[in-house]
Amino acid sequence: MKTVKIKASKSYSVLIGENLINSLPKHFQKAKIGGKLLIITDEKVNSFYGDKVLDILTFAGYNVQKYVVSGGEKSKSGKVYLEILDYLAQNEYTRKDTIVALGGGVVGDLAGFVSATYLRGINFVQIPTTLLAFADSSVGGKTAINLKSGKNLVGAFYQPKLVVCDISLIKTLDKKDYASGMAEIIKYGMIFDKKLLELIKNGMEENAEEIIFKCVALKKRVVQKDEKDNGVRGLLNFGHTLGHAVEKCSGFRVAHGKAVAIGMSIITETCVRKGLIESEVLNTLTELLVQYGLPTKTDIPLETLMEATMLDKKRKGGIITAVIPKKMGKCILKDFTIESWKDFILN
Amino acid sequence: MKTVKIKASKSYSVLIGENLINSLPKHFQKAKIGGKLLIITDEKVNSFYGDKVLDILTFAGYNVQKYVVSGGEKSKSGKVYLEILDYLAQNEYTRKDTIVALGGGVVGDLAGFVSATYLRGINFVQIPTTLLAFADSSVGGKTAINLKSGKNLVGAFYQPKLVVCDISLIKTLDKKDYASGMAEIIKYGMIFDKKLLELIKNGMEENAEEIIFKCVALKKRVVQKDEKDNGVRGLLNFGHTLGHAVEKCSGFRVAHGKAVAIGMSIITETCVRKGLIESEVLNTLTELLVQYGLPTKTDIPLETLMEATMLDKKRKGGIITAVIPKKMGKCILKDFTIESWKDFILN
Repeated sequence: MKTVKIKASKSYSVLIGENLINSLPKHFQKAKIGGKLLIITDEKVNSFYGDKVLDILTFAGYNVQKYVVSGGEKSKSGKVYLEILDYLAQNEYTRKDTIVALGGGVVGDLAGFVSATYLRGINFVQIPTTLLAFADSSVGGKTAINLKSGKNLVGAFYQPKLVVCDISLIKTLDKKDYASGMAEIIKYGMIFDKKLLELIKNGMEENAEEIIFKCVALKKRVVQKDEKDNGVRGLLNFGHTLGHAVEKCSGFRVAHGKAVAIGMSIITETCVRKGLIESEVLNTLTELLVQYGLPTKTDIPLETLMEATMLDKKRKGGIITAVIPKKMGKCILKDFTIESWKDFILN
Repeated sequence: MKTVKIKASKSYSVLIGENLINSLPKHFQKAKIGGKLLIITDEKVNSFYGDKVLDILTFAGYNVQKYVVSGGEKSKSGKVYLEILDYLAQNEYTRKDTIVALGGGVVGDLAGFVSATYLRGINFVQIPTTLLAFADSSVGGKTAINLKSGKNLVGAFYQPKLVVCDISLIKTLDKKDYASGMAEIIKYGMIFDKKLLELIKNGMEENAEEIIFKCVALKKRVVQKDEKDNGVRGLLNFGHTLGHAVEKCSGFRVAHGKAVAIGMSIITETCVRKGLIESEVLNTLTELLVQYGLPTKTDIPLETLMEATMLDKKRKGGIITAVIPKKMGKCILKDFTIESWKDFILN
């Protein structure tokens, strides 16, 4: 087992290793998790792990309840958010009690936003079950729900008290979730770490613990520098400005990871085309994406995507901060006006 | 004009004085409020001041829109919260834009929670229009909405960028709002400051600027020590544990300030009855409450109120932290188990 200690507005540990679910009570006690526990999970994860986690914690003496949402982006709605809050109030949860998110990014974002706001904040534990959530969304305290107008438009910065990444869960991932997670992992290599790109090329399954540890450690560095996402944390949006547009324009039929893969490809290809970077950067990116079954293009016209980037929540009063590759394993932030952004991508 | 500078997780100024609304643009510019502005207000306040504030800011060159809620506790619902968020997204508000709460505690709490969570936080300005909001809810960053199970069960800690207390607005307050505000102002005197009690006795209208300045300065001290409400900030709940119960058991027909007046009276009377404090403390409290038209008792049976205190959000896993008077102008925090709390009040 590897441990990454995060020091943000709250300090907490991210545990990474095999079969950690079996020793959950020990990790909960060490992190001083007390009170009643509400496991929030989705139907799919529940069918694999819901009762297992509930039983292990109940057997250790915890008072545990479970709340199952249907799953997918539609569960990250205002309606579901308010339903869970009503459930907590009706069951008299107090500030001493704890919400346990068992699932991928959707469950983590939703349960995290509930935790951030119920009684202005109760204890929160993340047990991610997807690669994407291991490497990215379970660390850093971003929580969110969606509005009709777009994804993640409502949320809070709220740190968990503990994150348990049980990498044995990778085995139950379906191909789609696996590919989505790999997109975010490749993203970390592209932004920060040439060596991580090599590890990924050598095979995820053989190097899972090391790769996830590296991603969490990289994210830690960023979050500690910029918890509230006003600067360097923006680098993690590599591929996301266009990626969000792909998700939105496809009616959320293209999964987040695939959309990010397409977003990274478009902006990297643009930089090569303009002679800003070596073509080797694009070649490496494309090879890794293909190796892990990820797309590098979309049928949606670029003009349509560009229109959709205009309501991206990162847009600050007419300025779009894009993440562009500089060389292998390094990206930078660059501000564009709306006009210069259109010109950069379309011409 | 008096200014109190608050140094919490964000620093900001609270301005207190006559006719400040007329010079709003100047104060906004000084506080670096930019972008589009959305004024959130209720029907009643809108009929007095909505267009005036909108016109003054528009004339100064701001792009201003207005969102009017019906008002009263029912506006602090999940439904209204989600409606405002949808409005912001549809009108493409970004993180550079600003929400301006123009109203009393309800509008401030609702608009504050919207500001705290839309795009994980956008700029927020408070223009309180009730005594209660001047002296209490506009400072300190507590934002909230209600659930069916109780008041303020959902929210966030989120500091404004500027608070403008225009005390000329006191003239348009109706008697009910005025009395409610006086309850909170008397509360500050009871908890912290014997001299404030004397100023209040000498007349609110003659001493408005000084009294509100004192309350804001007292609250500042508390908030800076304990922004997240884990300790000394609990003192501000004097009269609130029982007060919330009065509101709830009356179906929110008893206004917040009146309920707090009753809550302060019950607990102070209990302390006198048990010989814990001089009867002079109760006499002073009762005199001031009567002077400002506030109730000191309720027809709701004490047993019923005690049941309702059990789901108060301050209850931490079976412990009720009550605020009890120690002497004139001084209260302390005291932890009770549920049983000892019942025994303390009922016997």
